[in-house]
Amino acid sequence: MPDPSAVLPVYLDCDTGIDDAMAIAYLLASDHAELLGIGTVSGNTSAARAARNTLDLLDLAGRNEIPVAVGEHDFLARPFHGGATHVHGDNGIGGVVLPESPRHPIAESAPELLVRLAHEKPGELRVIAIGPLTNLAAALRLDPDIAELVADVTIMGGAATVPGNVTPVAEANIHNDPDAAAAVLEAAWPVTLVPLDTTMESLLDGNDRDRLLASDRPVARAIGEMLDTYFDFYVRVFGRRVSVLHDPLAAAVALGDLRLESAPTVHVEIDTTDGPSRGQTVSDLRGRFRGHPVTERARTRIVLSVAEPFAPRLMAALLTV
Amino acid sequence: MPDPSAVLPVYLDCDTGIDDAMAIAYLLASDHAELLGIGTVSGNTSAARAARNTLDLLDLAGRNEIPVAVGEHDFLARPFHGGATHVHGDNGIGGVVLPESPRHPIAESAPELLVRLAHEKPGELRVIAIGPLTNLAAALRLDPDIAELVADVTIMGGAATVPGNVTPVAEANIHNDPDAAAAVLEAAWPVTLVPLDTTMESLLDGNDRDRLLASDRPVARAIGEMLDTYFDFYVRVFGRRVSVLHDPLAAAVALGDLRLESAPTVHVEIDTTDGPSRGQTVSDLRGRFRGHPVTERARTRIVLSVAEPFAPRLMAALLTV
Repeated sequence: MPDPSAVLPVYLDCDTGIDDAMAIAYLLASDHAELLGIGTVSGNTSAARAARNTLDLLDLAGRNEIPVAVGEHDFLARPFHGGATHVHGDNGIGGVVLPESPRHPIAESAPELLVRLAHEKPGELRVIAIGPLTNLAAALRLDPDIAELVADVTIMGGAATVPGNVTPVAEANIHNDPDAAAAVLEAAWPVTLVPLDTTMESLLDGNDRDRLLASDRPVARAIGEMLDTYFDFYVRVFGRRVSVLHDPLAAAVALGDLRLESAPTVHVEIDTTDGPSRGQTVSDLRGRFRGHPVTERARTRIVLSVAEPFAPRLMAALLTV
Repeated sequence: MPDPSAVLPVYLDCDTGIDDAMAIAYLLASDHAELLGIGTVSGNTSAARAARNTLDLLDLAGRNEIPVAVGEHDFLARPFHGGATHVHGDNGIGGVVLPESPRHPIAESAPELLVRLAHEKPGELRVIAIGPLTNLAAALRLDPDIAELVADVTIMGGAATVPGNVTPVAEANIHNDPDAAAAVLEAAWPVTLVPLDTTMESLLDGNDRDRLLASDRPVARAIGEMLDTYFDFYVRVFGRRVSVLHDPLAAAVALGDLRLESAPTVHVEIDTTDGPSRGQTVSDLRGRFRGHPVTERARTRIVLSVAEPFAPRLMAALLTV
């Protein structure tokens, strides 16, 4: 876990996205994270749209010094499919129209930005990836040395002991680009996965949303508005209007903000077949019956549960951005 | 659930096997199951060796009227691999040498026996399959009508929310012949899966084994002896000398002997790829967060937990055969 008193340099890779917006706000609110740059990738919406959403959100927070780079539009082996509009709305942020930032993405691509930051902060840079892993895989291709330069990589993705969210066994970020995920897990950097096992357990509800809408902070209000669309979708999943906290929870884990209950280091293999398990994070948890994981080939830390509620911490952050 | 007062005609398909031996003994002890025939298949040991073990066990129980048929030696798409000798010993029953029955397997093959029994008991025959599903798939090829004639099929196999036992996500019976499993799940008969989710929760321990060894019943003593080998293997899994009850638990579910706690009917697809998820029972449990399963294409009942302990019931049966 990172030293809680240090300010951690962070590269965020995202597909903004309603829960991505919450993760960005969470990182902006943190006093021990310095967001050096944000790259966008297609997933919830297109990489270009995600960059626009990110720029607009940063400006709304008065943080227009943070560079935003557009990354890969298509996945490694398949074209972008158009996004999860049924979850995140047509524009990725629930149809909410933010004041348009005058800024534009930087000339560098997201993979180029990641490679540069890794070299500028050798041994220090924290990578937080909350979309498909296409940019990270592309950056590894550009410069394999970054696997040694980056301090660690924290990924929102996968499902180990709970059902997937796009197939019975696959989670959307990994399923969108399993080939990229496989490359990222095979690289030498330390990887922490924050899968659905953990993220489906942390929820915001209508009362939380009301508090966001009543805030005098523009980012909090905007997220409150976005949650209307997200709540609509999650009625199908939970039978009631709530929001999961996939992406901000991964950000909090990356910053060491949460005590972890179960986070074994195990062997994780990505299913890159075209079969029914495509995109699954095949996690070797066979040691569970004797109380400790199989350590053979174990390299990936997988956060199966956290030891404290995350929603109150997230709300506090969202209300102060 | 079958009428508890009726005597159910049963065809058992097995790869005897230590826990298969327990399942056979459990069925012999039941006053509401009539074991019309047993077919053997390769898995824990070869189909031929499994038939020898089964004949010897039946004679030890004084039940030499029950016909035993040898079934498929090789799996549908791959040759038999030699068996799980590290689990079940070289002869499949923990190296225990039973008095050799003078009987031989019948001339019919196991698939032929199953087809004949299905026609002799239209709408009544219960099929219990506790090995790889090669014989059932072969029987469906011989006569697809059996899918309409058989009352139901109960299978020990698969893993839904718990790790597999031969790969991180696959259970041995299904992994041995995923193509056969796919054919069996696609057929029109009602299928109940009894996966590791349930069977890993029911254990016998050293005290149980001592009671079996102290019995004056030859079958109980023989199973007590076999358990020495099984206990040795399960130290690797549980860290202590215990036995899981995979196969007898499936037999008990088939007979309606156990109250079920969670047994949703869901869509189950078998992974037949050559990827890391080969042999997985991909089960659509995505409805769990709203308390009921996804019913789209749902045809397979999957027993995720039982509502009462099984070990005492099994012990009572084993001590009376």
